[in-house]
Amino acid sequence: MASMPESEAKCHATVVSGWLSESNSYSDKVNKVLYYNNPMWPGEAHSLKVEKILYQGKSDYQEILVFESSTYGKVLALDGIVQLTEKDECAYQEMIAHLPLCSIPSPKTVLVVGGGDGGVLREISRHSSVEIIDICEIDDLVIDVCKKFFPDLSVGFDDPRVRLHVGDAVEFLRNTPEGTYDAVIVDSSDPIGPAQELVEKPFFETIAKALKPGGVLCNQAESLWLHTHLIQDMLSICRQTFKGSVHYAWTSVPTYPSGVIGFILCSTDGPPVNFLSPINPIEKQKGAHGGRREVRFYNSEIHRAAFALPSFAKRELTSSVP
Amino acid sequence: MASMPESEAKCHATVVSGWLSESNSYSDKVNKVLYYNNPMWPGEAHSLKVEKILYQGKSDYQEILVFESSTYGKVLALDGIVQLTEKDECAYQEMIAHLPLCSIPSPKTVLVVGGGDGGVLREISRHSSVEIIDICEIDDLVIDVCKKFFPDLSVGFDDPRVRLHVGDAVEFLRNTPEGTYDAVIVDSSDPIGPAQELVEKPFFETIAKALKPGGVLCNQAESLWLHTHLIQDMLSICRQTFKGSVHYAWTSVPTYPSGVIGFILCSTDGPPVNFLSPINPIEKQKGAHGGRREVRFYNSEIHRAAFALPSFAKRELTSSVP
Repeated sequence: MASMPESEAKCHATVVSGWLSESNSYSDKVNKVLYYNNPMWPGEAHSLKVEKILYQGKSDYQEILVFESSTYGKVLALDGIVQLTEKDECAYQEMIAHLPLCSIPSPKTVLVVGGGDGGVLREISRHSSVEIIDICEIDDLVIDVCKKFFPDLSVGFDDPRVRLHVGDAVEFLRNTPEGTYDAVIVDSSDPIGPAQELVEKPFFETIAKALKPGGVLCNQAESLWLHTHLIQDMLSICRQTFKGSVHYAWTSVPTYPSGVIGFILCSTDGPPVNFLSPINPIEKQKGAHGGRREVRFYNSEIHRAAFALPSFAKRELTSSVP
Repeated sequence: MASMPESEAKCHATVVSGWLSESNSYSDKVNKVLYYNNPMWPGEAHSLKVEKILYQGKSDYQEILVFESSTYGKVLALDGIVQLTEKDECAYQEMIAHLPLCSIPSPKTVLVVGGGDGGVLREISRHSSVEIIDICEIDDLVIDVCKKFFPDLSVGFDDPRVRLHVGDAVEFLRNTPEGTYDAVIVDSSDPIGPAQELVEKPFFETIAKALKPGGVLCNQAESLWLHTHLIQDMLSICRQTFKGSVHYAWTSVPTYPSGVIGFILCSTDGPPVNFLSPINPIEKQKGAHGGRREVRFYNSEIHRAAFALPSFAKRELTSSVP
């Protein structure tokens, strides 16, 4: 979910025939199809058949599109880039939330950067130890649109532990007192244009400062099939910034570029964190099986499996992964 | 790699503007793009930008297309369905070969069904215990085309242990003496049209018969995001047919539908096989690090991780997976 200003909308090229049209797009005048590609993902594109456009609008930050697809349920696209589909959102939301929260014994205070759809909040809510869930999302129109069209995600906002801050996360973190959070989850857009700040050292430094000793960061970290250099750079910055451990994990999300998404997991100085083996397993959370719905993707075996890297990635990331 | 007759070419819809055109295709007259979709994968499509068409022809069984893509290297498509790209073929070829061969102590005789590109042969060759590698591929034009355009795969045919049988695998297995193989690897096309036979009980029964006691099967088994019912059916047949263990594993292949591919692993009566933990690790094979190139994807952690299933898949496949 994009959370940073996208005033120069460079990172998209979308067509839904008859509805939306951008430069660099593939146009299809016969079939109703969303083709999406972007500069993070040159030379390829993924297409979803559109049954019905449900919403399109423009906020101060981005173009927002919601449509019913023929096989992935409802879809949210920002600036022409698919952010989530009802069919596979479970993989992303559950992994980005539970990889960090199940790695520490008893998370109490959590910050979400971005995540205006509410899906990450929904997942954090399963953890009964959590007392405060701050979320800093820049685009309140995304929140409103998701409340209307994606109630299974925006249900996350209904939890009384949630405190919504509409604004710039870089600014929010600058003003956060030292040692506030047990976990920070960065559910960000691709680092092109203004979101570039979210992969730079000062941003990670403010997060490290905002974390308690033994606190953890989970940061969206692109595709190991496509973005090796970017991942290497992020790992390198994180190893300089976080004094505990730094690891890369990944999982399958069919509608993301190359069908995977990665996460960088970091811990601060303090009690050591073994990300590779969940100390606070989801299977023991009563919220995992009750509430609105069951966990659909994540479990403790999937958690451990997420850290197994292909041989090429081990070699390429080896200078940065301990 | 398709290995079965595709005389009724139902399962494709391809366009490369100016070069190929099929019904149900998306056509793009401006950009040079291969859009591919198929009935195994309704409502979505993946597209690769085409730099140059290198070969197109028609065998007795299928249309064969080779092109240079802009970001995935050379690509082989059969009947408009991408079979492999140079960028990500390592994941499929290494997993389908090493998941079974690293699960048994000392494989000596191996049969490959399909696999005319030679990639699976290349991977089997890394195992020094192997004495005989039979391959039964129906389409010798695929073999010839791959020898010309994909030398890094067809190098597999250069191994003196390889015995090539051009013909129908169903027939070949019917004539195979009982207890011939330590491992059978089915590198098949999607089960539409004639390849339907490859997901039916009689085919699995001939494989079980062809295996030695404690022998293993690894069968291409589609996407758990898309093909639950098909996987359930195959698992159910395999549990009736194979008296040892039956497991489902999966991995990431960006250019396959939904970005993943699965494998069914089965063992016959005899010495028990624990697929979940490689007894014959690739790291101990001298061929893993020498020869033409290093293993790029597979390693023992990736092997173990491949058996971790998402919660939804555990529930859906639970009646079939022990």
